[in-house]
Amino acid sequence: MTDHFCQEFSELEKEIFYKVVFSRRDVRKNFIEKKIEDKILIKILKAAHHAPSVGFSQPWNFILIKDEIIRKDIKNSFLNERLKDFNLLENDKVKQKKYLELKLEGILESDINICVTYDHNRFGPFVIGRMTIEEAGIYSVCCAIQNLWLASRVEGIGVGWVSILNNSDLRKILNLPENIKPIAYLCLGFVDEFNDSPDLEKSNWLKRLDLKDTIFFEKWNENTNIHWDSFKSLFQYNC
Amino acid sequence: MTDHFCQEFSELEKEIFYKVVFSRRDVRKNFIEKKIEDKILIKILKAAHHAPSVGFSQPWNFILIKDEIIRKDIKNSFLNERLKDFNLLENDKVKQKKYLELKLEGILESDINICVTYDHNRFGPFVIGRMTIEEAGIYSVCCAIQNLWLASRVEGIGVGWVSILNNSDLRKILNLPENIKPIAYLCLGFVDEFNDSPDLEKSNWLKRLDLKDTIFFEKWNENTNIHWDSFKSLFQYNC
Repeated sequence: MTDHFCQEFSELEKEIFYKVVFSRRDVRKNFIEKKIEDKILIKILKAAHHAPSVGFSQPWNFILIKDEIIRKDIKNSFLNERLKDFNLLENDKVKQKKYLELKLEGILESDINICVTYDHNRFGPFVIGRMTIEEAGIYSVCCAIQNLWLASRVEGIGVGWVSILNNSDLRKILNLPENIKPIAYLCLGFVDEFNDSPDLEKSNWLKRLDLKDTIFFEKWNENTNIHWDSFKSLFQYNC
Repeated sequence: MTDHFCQEFSELEKEIFYKVVFSRRDVRKNFIEKKIEDKILIKILKAAHHAPSVGFSQPWNFILIKDEIIRKDIKNSFLNERLKDFNLLENDKVKQKKYLELKLEGILESDINICVTYDHNRFGPFVIGRMTIEEAGIYSVCCAIQNLWLASRVEGIGVGWVSILNNSDLRKILNLPENIKPIAYLCLGFVDEFNDSPDLEKSNWLKRLDLKDTIFFEKWNENTNIHWDSFKSLFQYNC
């Protein structure tokens, strides 16, 4: 990786990085016909593979899916689960109606689907940093997914994470062994445009929280620690 | 976020993004005295807060920690857990010796510690995409952590994720309520340099896997699907 290596980033480079972060979206529509070239897909997967992992265990696999029959089976799992979700909302007819209007997946319309899985046995049983917090390996897989997501964005490719799916269905459809846990089912494809805010924010499903409401100082629910006074006063201009 | 919004990235911008990804490290040493400015910390937290989240539930909190007493308590939890890990290796004296030589945390030497937590009740109980896969909210928190990690890297700040910690200790020390799950304990600080490869690779603890060995086509353990022939032939030059 020496050709990519860098110690310091300029102000302009920082700006570009944040542009990627802030313009990344969870995409379920606007996919176009354009194919993802192999060399671009490899770049995206390489970014995922360079995520941090607990004890350097690299516990991920990527199942790349183009096959129509497989995708239709996955889509059926989605439809079943969506119906269950719909029924859960039966006491709130307004929300139920809104839920049905949301476009929640692009399984068939996207160019490629990727199932990202977790292998607890990889380099085990002793994995540094995973003996006390057993789920830490799963967290690593999620870091890889976020790298993949951002790399896709920089390449102009939209990614949608479909979690209205049944893992038992996924196991059957993709022949996953017992010890392999599916973590994400992603739909990737070029899009005609990226929205300037998340779909669920745009449709008034939920609002973005103020950053300051997610932060505590020194301990849970503490907001008054003196170490952090200057930090807090900056918040009003920056959040 | 409109000022940060962007539809397409140039080749140069792509290159810069990948430089961030490939030069990010899990840092446990080389921390220097330099303080992280408030405005930089806010930028990093904002990047985390703009991660994707299941059903836009934004289920994360960030507890910012400078206090020495708290950090010393956390460090003690680390020391206890490290000893347990050490004992687990008693049948492999070579590995045990190597394990002791590894620097695995920078709790006291880093400028700031951040505990990132998960709140299952945020915007619940009905969260889109979390009714079938209940852990999906935890996955969102990990995506936020990866954004934070990359943003730190671009700012020249090293991050180390310490998972040799006992979550019951964390709960007690940080006053976490029952419904709040600690996901990550991170140590952030400027470093004198970023290594060109992960510590655990450098010290020959484990090797980086070949990307191609993490990839399957259409189903688990399948490598021969005809859709993917051209993709596979590219691998030898790109991985």
